[in-house]
Amino acid sequence: MITGKNYIGNVLASTGKVTFKTFNPKTNKENNLVFTEVSAIEIEQATALATEAFKVYKKLSGTKKSEFLNEIANQIEALGTTLLNMYCSESGLSKERAISERERTIFQLRSFANLVKEGSWVEATIDTANPIRIPIPKPDLRKMLVPLGPILVFGASNFPLAYSTAGGDTAAALAAGCPVIVKSHPMHAGTGELVAYAVIKAAEITGMPNGVFSNLNSGGIEVGTVLVKHPAIKAVGFTGSINGGRSLYNLAAQRPEPIPVFAEMGSVNPVILLPKAVKKKGVYWAKTFANSITLGAGQFCTNPGLILGIKGEDLTKFIKILSDEILKIEPTCMLHPSILNSFEEKTSRIAQQVGVEETVFYKKKTSKNYGRQAIATVDGTTFLANTNLHKEVFGPFSMVVQCKSVEQLEIIISKLEGQLTGTVLEEKELENYTEIVSALQNRVGRIIFNGVPTGVEVCNAMVHGGPYPASTDSRFTAVGVNSIKRWVRPFCYQNWPDIFLPNELKNKNPLGISRLVDGKQTSKKINKI
Amino acid sequence: MITGKNYIGNVLASTGKVTFKTFNPKTNKENNLVFTEVSAIEIEQATALATEAFKVYKKLSGTKKSEFLNEIANQIEALGTTLLNMYCSESGLSKERAISERERTIFQLRSFANLVKEGSWVEATIDTANPIRIPIPKPDLRKMLVPLGPILVFGASNFPLAYSTAGGDTAAALAAGCPVIVKSHPMHAGTGELVAYAVIKAAEITGMPNGVFSNLNSGGIEVGTVLVKHPAIKAVGFTGSINGGRSLYNLAAQRPEPIPVFAEMGSVNPVILLPKAVKKKGVYWAKTFANSITLGAGQFCTNPGLILGIKGEDLTKFIKILSDEILKIEPTCMLHPSILNSFEEKTSRIAQQVGVEETVFYKKKTSKNYGRQAIATVDGTTFLANTNLHKEVFGPFSMVVQCKSVEQLEIIISKLEGQLTGTVLEEKELENYTEIVSALQNRVGRIIFNGVPTGVEVCNAMVHGGPYPASTDSRFTAVGVNSIKRWVRPFCYQNWPDIFLPNELKNKNPLGISRLVDGKQTSKKINKI
Repeated sequence: MITGKNYIGNVLASTGKVTFKTFNPKTNKENNLVFTEVSAIEIEQATALATEAFKVYKKLSGTKKSEFLNEIANQIEALGTTLLNMYCSESGLSKERAISERERTIFQLRSFANLVKEGSWVEATIDTANPIRIPIPKPDLRKMLVPLGPILVFGASNFPLAYSTAGGDTAAALAAGCPVIVKSHPMHAGTGELVAYAVIKAAEITGMPNGVFSNLNSGGIEVGTVLVKHPAIKAVGFTGSINGGRSLYNLAAQRPEPIPVFAEMGSVNPVILLPKAVKKKGVYWAKTFANSITLGAGQFCTNPGLILGIKGEDLTKFIKILSDEILKIEPTCMLHPSILNSFEEKTSRIAQQVGVEETVFYKKKTSKNYGRQAIATVDGTTFLANTNLHKEVFGPFSMVVQCKSVEQLEIIISKLEGQLTGTVLEEKELENYTEIVSALQNRVGRIIFNGVPTGVEVCNAMVHGGPYPASTDSRFTAVGVNSIKRWVRPFCYQNWPDIFLPNELKNKNPLGISRLVDGKQTSKKINKI
Repeated sequence: MITGKNYIGNVLASTGKVTFKTFNPKTNKENNLVFTEVSAIEIEQATALATEAFKVYKKLSGTKKSEFLNEIANQIEALGTTLLNMYCSESGLSKERAISERERTIFQLRSFANLVKEGSWVEATIDTANPIRIPIPKPDLRKMLVPLGPILVFGASNFPLAYSTAGGDTAAALAAGCPVIVKSHPMHAGTGELVAYAVIKAAEITGMPNGVFSNLNSGGIEVGTVLVKHPAIKAVGFTGSINGGRSLYNLAAQRPEPIPVFAEMGSVNPVILLPKAVKKKGVYWAKTFANSITLGAGQFCTNPGLILGIKGEDLTKFIKILSDEILKIEPTCMLHPSILNSFEEKTSRIAQQVGVEETVFYKKKTSKNYGRQAIATVDGTTFLANTNLHKEVFGPFSMVVQCKSVEQLEIIISKLEGQLTGTVLEEKELENYTEIVSALQNRVGRIIFNGVPTGVEVCNAMVHGGPYPASTDSRFTAVGVNSIKRWVRPFCYQNWPDIFLPNELKNKNPLGISRLVDGKQTSKKINKI
């Protein structure tokens, strides 16, 4: 089933000369399969096909698109253990994680299928005409959301299924009516090809236009660069490092026609440990956070990398327990030797900074490529003065900052870069810290009460995004069905004949969707002629 | 009442050294008033005040914000003829236009006041908890839109009221909960100061925090550059030229923390003249478009600058009638000698391009600074080959392109840059041109059936925006209450105690707003504990 080739629309191709292999971090060996990097000609073919496919795909009904999305989910399920085994061999992640991530991927696809089948998501808005208005007649205006065009999606290293080939970005873009070109992540190109096979099969079964989906292999950054600059591409989805995301953002902003880049990047996810909470529940929170910090070898974008408390006996005790607890946890395999190296480099660089104490470092021998957890501590003044300490360390690491006062805590929060999440741990004391909460709100996309930031629910109310550099555009979420809004724009018809309007905007409301008609939300038809 | 000073929050200041005057294009003379450009210190003061004001202003209720917005409208009304006279003396526009633009400005302010008073615009979305869900409990998640922070608004040359000091961008940002710093347009700094006086007075009457609004004077581009790069600024609104908007966009994209720039820029607003329409209604459309092209000396962003038809007798006749009609129209005063110069330069440059025929040029003597309308014609092949001909000419000018076939017409449409509007003129023939309409849709934000693009209704269904360079972000509209979405981001509370939630998200729904609760739109309260 695996060929190592690229899907240029529905056709497998490998005219390129450059090849690469994936790596199994658990066995510490290269996998056997050879992948061929997409060639310049194939890139031109894929983008041309996507542009042609858009002409047809943008007009398909929500029902047709939902059939496609549901069939992708079916085809991913049909891959069975082949997919799970490939996933594990290319990520070092466990089979349980593979299963749960596959379920999440399928849930996302089916959620978007339901959304577009129901149809109200297009925000149909109608202001009917008033031909006798003074001084000039009021025209009939009807607005709905329409797709942007071909979207480029970069697979994420840490979510080979849920945020890669047919993950959240792809599902949202296909649901919106946009063809998708995936730049497959080189660490899990085999998983990518299997999922691409499922997507292409679903496209054929449900009669989608050729070019609605392509899957391109590449081991380096050149292919991504060419694609982001390509005039056929109308927006970009990316999940990964700040350096990677910012590079793509810069390229997109420098195009003759700039395009939106939705990059979900770094975050240290600050945790505010309020005085009573640390005093009364320090043990509980230390245990809870030892688990959250090491979950999945710390390879989650919502990993709690920064814990802020007020210096004193209670915090010292908390650090001691956190240290003890974290040493009890068995390290697990990281995604790739390069990710492990980067983790070890960054933790040791942080430990070398003046004023930083490496409080815990798991030193027992582990298998190759296992991420050994670490905790560092630093005082508030040192932290404030050294922004190197504000940067994300991707992996099982967290830094505890001992602030000298609540005032310093507030200043530190206000100086943090943008974050996906902020957490407040309290014990009936929140009302005394409204300024702290207010400052934290300005820096994050989601705020958590007495809990852990890891675990991102896929639902309507989720916000996965935040001020830069958590994401390049805080006005959108990357998780949940609302993420479809990234790939659409409002479009307005003025005095357009009813018969030529899309169904969403016709007087009779044949889809029965909820619409804003003359300022009132309604599913009723319009009786005007 | 006019001082020539800057409003740094509620305080008038003029510590700067650079001064400038405005110009009356009707009398062709400088106005007397001297304006002092904002100093570097004052810029720091205004941004610091805005940052402080945001802490208070972001938390104000919709009712309080609506009082502020309505009071701004009241205070603008109270300026009476002082404002109208100043407007005319700095723009060359008529008193009737001044009155209608003032009405539009007031209507916008009151529309946003109503929107935020009602409150449902925040898109409150609640997914309640499920503590017994397997394998892990589902948290309570509650999302709403929150303001981005201090916004920088650039006044527009062609709308001294409706898209300047307290125009659409400012009204939308204040409604969203964002403090606003206006970089006043130097052509109408006096009008700007009068309106700023009204805003500050309203802020004082309704008890708004000092710094919620500042009005900064500047004759050049340096002040704008400093402000766009300033870390306190979180987004930018701009209406003007492509060069100006793109420069601001580039600066914002290069910041350490990039920020959104919503620039509404150039557009030639293509008009598609289908064969039967030109045959049967050529005379009618020629007369109608002669008026639309010259309306307000062509100084509207929706001015029809490009008319696309199929070469032949009927189109030749249309051009002849359009030429005759346009010569019957009296030229009117343009906004400024620099705008007239640019108009004349661009029309003459276009007339010099190979293959372009200057079909009409109003040659009778006019008063100084009057824009003399012109029509050029060119064949489709020449137009396709020379993208200089695709650029906007701001003023009373339009170019008629004689395509050799429907196929060429479609190609030309698909090669156009992004546009605010596209217009289709037809005579019971639309069903034969679905590909033309589809191609046009990809390039525009609003599509008009048998009408003119000039005249932008302020309503829910309006889209004023479009693919680049019509605007820098096609995902938002600059006109209508939905333009508030530019200045907000979604924000999520996880497991947050009801008592500490904002009213929009509390179980009891004290504001009675419409919310999406567990997937259902409702105004009811939530009975869960």
